[in-house]
Amino acid sequence: MLLRRGLLVTRGPLLSLASNWTPQRPRAARTSVSSSMADPSPAASKKVKMAICQLLVTADKEENIKCARKAIEDAAKQGSSIVVLPEMWNCPYSNDSFPTYAEEVPSPGPDSPVAPATSTSPSVSMMADVSRQCGVTLVGGSIPECSNGKLYNTCCVFGSRGSLLGKHRKTHLFDIDIPGKIRFMESDTLTAGDKLTVVDTDVGRLGIGICYDIRFPEMALLYAKAGVQIIVYPGAFNTTTGPAHWEVVQRARAVDCQLFVVTCSPARQEGAGYQAWGHSTAVGPFGEVLATCGHEQATVFVELDLAQVERRRENMPFMRQRRADLYSLTGEAAKP
Amino acid sequence: MLLRRGLLVTRGPLLSLASNWTPQRPRAARTSVSSSMADPSPAASKKVKMAICQLLVTADKEENIKCARKAIEDAAKQGSSIVVLPEMWNCPYSNDSFPTYAEEVPSPGPDSPVAPATSTSPSVSMMADVSRQCGVTLVGGSIPECSNGKLYNTCCVFGSRGSLLGKHRKTHLFDIDIPGKIRFMESDTLTAGDKLTVVDTDVGRLGIGICYDIRFPEMALLYAKAGVQIIVYPGAFNTTTGPAHWEVVQRARAVDCQLFVVTCSPARQEGAGYQAWGHSTAVGPFGEVLATCGHEQATVFVELDLAQVERRRENMPFMRQRRADLYSLTGEAAKP
Repeated sequence: MLLRRGLLVTRGPLLSLASNWTPQRPRAARTSVSSSMADPSPAASKKVKMAICQLLVTADKEENIKCARKAIEDAAKQGSSIVVLPEMWNCPYSNDSFPTYAEEVPSPGPDSPVAPATSTSPSVSMMADVSRQCGVTLVGGSIPECSNGKLYNTCCVFGSRGSLLGKHRKTHLFDIDIPGKIRFMESDTLTAGDKLTVVDTDVGRLGIGICYDIRFPEMALLYAKAGVQIIVYPGAFNTTTGPAHWEVVQRARAVDCQLFVVTCSPARQEGAGYQAWGHSTAVGPFGEVLATCGHEQATVFVELDLAQVERRRENMPFMRQRRADLYSLTGEAAKP
Repeated sequence: MLLRRGLLVTRGPLLSLASNWTPQRPRAARTSVSSSMADPSPAASKKVKMAICQLLVTADKEENIKCARKAIEDAAKQGSSIVVLPEMWNCPYSNDSFPTYAEEVPSPGPDSPVAPATSTSPSVSMMADVSRQCGVTLVGGSIPECSNGKLYNTCCVFGSRGSLLGKHRKTHLFDIDIPGKIRFMESDTLTAGDKLTVVDTDVGRLGIGICYDIRFPEMALLYAKAGVQIIVYPGAFNTTTGPAHWEVVQRARAVDCQLFVVTCSPARQEGAGYQAWGHSTAVGPFGEVLATCGHEQATVFVELDLAQVERRRENMPFMRQRRADLYSLTGEAAKP
């Protein structure tokens, strides 16, 4: 258990926290944005209790599913209304494993039913089932998705009634080669997604990115302009880029875009082929680290006061100070 | 004197450093850029010796000019080939002072002559004269510029033969209001510039921003795409946003754009109306702080190995990994 800047980070159960806020439905997201004006975030004066589950991922898929379910249930018992899982939480992070652990993922939509415990997509089914059962919004990290002969690195977002509200396929594949340090080519097996993903949930408007997606400020800026309040990046940085960049890119996205940034990494598995950096973190819209942890299995509990997004933007109105006459960022932050 | 990560930060004279590199002329800058491809940086395998002069600025303009000249001469004597001055180095940082301390600034151009020691623009004349005399490239921080009845916050860049190679007028004015902390409205007196500024110099291709300009990632990304190797931001953050954001936004621009970022602040003047954060810094293209200082008067000496820009971009090719099909950043990084 680690206390950092007044927030609790724990590996075990806590006393149950009272939940005393009322969900508000955010306004509809824009599907195209201009560079000069922000779609104001939904008026919000509410606090969101979040659990970030830095899971230890093994080669045993069934065990991974069981552990993830347990972590979500524990987080819900402690009053969390939104739970976040890591990138590739059901699967070792390797190109060899992705095809073997992949599942089909249905198309999202507010009424999408997902049958519990189907044999072909057990990870997806578990997430649907547990989010409904516990009544939590679930940002399901990512799993390898198979679709029409292709593989994707896919994040599923479930609403608190178990429907699949959105799915994000990693749009920037992790292809890097730092000689003597790390080489990884996701594009050897994976296909990149073809959209940015905004999801409206009971707890606020979310933008989703996966790991390497965080490297590209354009994506975060488009999310900010679409009224996103929290960008969630499931991600598994490594022990080279982790210490060098993990915190700074999170804080940068948060302070530049004046929104919350949340990351969720797998725990580091000693001896595994890929050494994850860990350090799952929540950052506030002034760039402040709200809660974080080390590289071991942990659940980070944090309360996000979404009203801070508006307050920071009133104090320092970056969005309307942009120079549309000098530069223009265009793109679509698609909703399902 | 402060030793940080092997680099020397000093307030007084050092032994003269040998200069053993050969200047290379960078390729011409592009004046418009697309979001998907970078103009490759000039092939470079050279080290640049830079001095960042964190000057103590007083209400005595003549004294400020004298001190700046002395700092530049000292830096040149110690082998620096490029010298950087702070934002508003000839003038207290206040809306009351800007009109009083303002000077006319000629239009830049490779052959622009600037007469030494004219009475109407003594700061500009000193910079032209000393850069020629010392044979250094000079990024002249900023001064208030008057032009056609308007005031600008303007950075002049002089070549090593004393010609005015470029001038950048701050494009994002510093208008913020954090209740109980800081309120400042540059737009009460100043007009914003209408272009981004790339300058080719003997020491490499520079992009210029002034202080609040650093808040806007679009500008830095456009500079990166225009082949800029070093973005120089003269800037005077304050004691609220300084500790919260100064380092993180510099590191963010550097790591996202894979180039050097250099900032130069005035030293903190106890008792002055505006309390500058100081902490002038140089950051490398992997987001690493190369050299920095505290809030007192100091000159930071740092050697920048421009070959690192290309190396980092080969290892992690962000520029060609961008998703032009999902977002597009357009704009012009104008040369004089």
